[in-house]
Amino acid sequence: MAKPVFQSLPGFRDFRPEDCAVRNYLFRNFREVARRYGFVEYETPIVEGTELYLKKSGGELGTQLFRFEDQGGRDVTLRPEVTASLGRLLTACQRDYPKPLRWFEIGQCFRYEKPQAGRTREFYQFNVDLIGEPNAAADAELIALTIELMRELGFQKGDFVIRLSDRAYWQSFAEAKGLSEEQAAELLQIVDKLERDKEGTLPAKLEALGLTVEEVQTAIKSPSDLSENLNTVLSNLEARGMRDDVEVDLSIVRGLAYYTGVVFEIFDAKKSMRAVAGGGRYDSLVSALSDGKVDLPAVGFAIGDVVIRDLIEKTPHALEKMQAALKAETACDVFLVLADPEKQSNVLALASTLRTAGIAVSYSLSPTKFAKQFKAAEQAGAALALVIGAEFPEASLKIVATREEVKLTIDGDIKQTLSQYLKK
Amino acid sequence: MAKPVFQSLPGFRDFRPEDCAVRNYLFRNFREVARRYGFVEYETPIVEGTELYLKKSGGELGTQLFRFEDQGGRDVTLRPEVTASLGRLLTACQRDYPKPLRWFEIGQCFRYEKPQAGRTREFYQFNVDLIGEPNAAADAELIALTIELMRELGFQKGDFVIRLSDRAYWQSFAEAKGLSEEQAAELLQIVDKLERDKEGTLPAKLEALGLTVEEVQTAIKSPSDLSENLNTVLSNLEARGMRDDVEVDLSIVRGLAYYTGVVFEIFDAKKSMRAVAGGGRYDSLVSALSDGKVDLPAVGFAIGDVVIRDLIEKTPHALEKMQAALKAETACDVFLVLADPEKQSNVLALASTLRTAGIAVSYSLSPTKFAKQFKAAEQAGAALALVIGAEFPEASLKIVATREEVKLTIDGDIKQTLSQYLKK
Repeated sequence: MAKPVFQSLPGFRDFRPEDCAVRNYLFRNFREVARRYGFVEYETPIVEGTELYLKKSGGELGTQLFRFEDQGGRDVTLRPEVTASLGRLLTACQRDYPKPLRWFEIGQCFRYEKPQAGRTREFYQFNVDLIGEPNAAADAELIALTIELMRELGFQKGDFVIRLSDRAYWQSFAEAKGLSEEQAAELLQIVDKLERDKEGTLPAKLEALGLTVEEVQTAIKSPSDLSENLNTVLSNLEARGMRDDVEVDLSIVRGLAYYTGVVFEIFDAKKSMRAVAGGGRYDSLVSALSDGKVDLPAVGFAIGDVVIRDLIEKTPHALEKMQAALKAETACDVFLVLADPEKQSNVLALASTLRTAGIAVSYSLSPTKFAKQFKAAEQAGAALALVIGAEFPEASLKIVATREEVKLTIDGDIKQTLSQYLKK
Repeated sequence: MAKPVFQSLPGFRDFRPEDCAVRNYLFRNFREVARRYGFVEYETPIVEGTELYLKKSGGELGTQLFRFEDQGGRDVTLRPEVTASLGRLLTACQRDYPKPLRWFEIGQCFRYEKPQAGRTREFYQFNVDLIGEPNAAADAELIALTIELMRELGFQKGDFVIRLSDRAYWQSFAEAKGLSEEQAAELLQIVDKLERDKEGTLPAKLEALGLTVEEVQTAIKSPSDLSENLNTVLSNLEARGMRDDVEVDLSIVRGLAYYTGVVFEIFDAKKSMRAVAGGGRYDSLVSALSDGKVDLPAVGFAIGDVVIRDLIEKTPHALEKMQAALKAETACDVFLVLADPEKQSNVLALASTLRTAGIAVSYSLSPTKFAKQFKAAEQAGAALALVIGAEFPEASLKIVATREEVKLTIDGDIKQTLSQYLKK
């Protein structure tokens, strides 16, 4: 085929119906698990003033921002993530709601990165935040939600692992080593990169802090003492039968500067892919975004649609579950086959009646041969083909899968009659 | 309250949970009605190369575009509508699908307009397109879908009217008057603005075409002959019992250049608001967007979220229906009340069990006084409060609405026991 005249922009995705069905399957699972955990949905704009993100991240995200000047001369950005907007929104309206808030969001985010496998310029994100609760029971509640989500998506014990850590552990470590606040922040950045130190520059950086790689690795592998919060999270998950889905891994610190306590990431069991999702406690962010006017402890979690879809497709039982769910969704319950052109009005009237009763109905819009109408019924994925002919209101019903045929009368009970066959 | 440090950009909306619930109510109705009519969902990117829109509209939309240069020096635009992207996508993939296509989309669009009542810079749009079917039965099918949507949203006969027209009527009129193709296009623009001719400039413009206002108004009010397609649509809707929801109004031509045949708009019965929605046949667009490589007749319809929400709120029975639907959605089915701190693990285990069974569960995350937990249950909108105390697995269930109390045992049947109370 010749190259189309217009193409989508690099890194942006078209969702054909079969892709959109996968996206919606993810969204349905996100919403369902959020509902079970008592969370309600909110949404914020896709475009925000750039300073919101610079303030939040301390400039870290600067180079990846999808940033531009709007027609009013404003420095604006297609949101790279939603937590900054949430912080902005909470500053304005948190006093209208009893605490803690259990809020979630599903929407698109954008990053101006070089497009590559698993890295698009846009992606959907499921954001879950528990706001106004300092107790580590909230961290556990959120981690339990992520585990429930993974299970709901068809993952089983051993398919994934949640690596759990606490920044407070490194704060204590830094204090014990006599590091300044600035040096402690640098230590976190080094720990974050330790597993991926391709250039081998980290030993020198640690040395500048008066530390050795060995010291740090020992602190990761043989922690002297877990923080109280980590212990709370672990025993809390134990009570839920979720302890086995989690492992303590102090090398996890999350890159972003705003995390303040427990942090966690989900990985595939082989750790062969990048993190599927991650989150943690950010007790200072709302305060920072409101210049100290509103002080709310918070813990949050985000999962993108790209990596989780990849992981589902690589995990046979998760894939099977998704495919079964997609198959059960058909675009058509009943296809009306017109055997006598004189009865077209009856087909239209019947279509209206059935649709209003919640049944998905299709039919051929222009005059079409009998056999072709049956083919169209199959292509539409119809469970039933109902043939309307000269003998109307007598009609014949064909069950598409089995080719079984039933005679029936189209009367006031037709909705119920068809519903019974659809349930089978 | 002091002005927040950060604010959303002008014309962009935050959706607090109560607003997001309204948005989702609209989306649910869009999806449900589309499903009944056999339509499947797709999605295209929110950002496209600007030339796509310029090509489609002939530059008309130019001044309203939310247009900028991306970091790669591309001239890009936040989509003002979705039909251009649909045309682009169809050019690339239409041959993979049997015709006609019944496709719909729900997503955000953007226009850089001066924000005012009912005019935001972003809005959600429900787009429905029937592609590959030249027969006017497709136009009728789409109009029937819009009527079904209005009914599903709680509007009754007489609350709204669909004004129906056909550009072909004006093409014939122009031909009879000996107008050139260019002049015919100008005539359509004049007819479109006739009802809103504040400056009184139209008589002179018509005169330049050799026409009078009277002639045009007579053509609108006393049409000599309706087009065959209009007659097909009318009798088709008659067969569905929908004829009364439609009135022929030849003054409707839709502003955009790409419509080629039947066009229609939904108005509130008093016509006191701008059009709620509109659509029509666009048989040449896909061909134009593919430089003639793909030729597909099409008919489409779009409705935005802002005006329809306004109309619902102004129409008592539609508002009542929406409020009932929103009330039925609760963020919490069962609130677990911890009466004995020793039983915290039991509460966590029970929460997990119930949630996995699909029940929405909440509880207090940190130690909270008994009375306060009940208050939290009410605030969460819980139907049931289940009190876990020293006598576990014996427990007491409180039906929040009636304050009725029931003793029960927490065992393997607990999901079913609670489900029964939730159904009541």
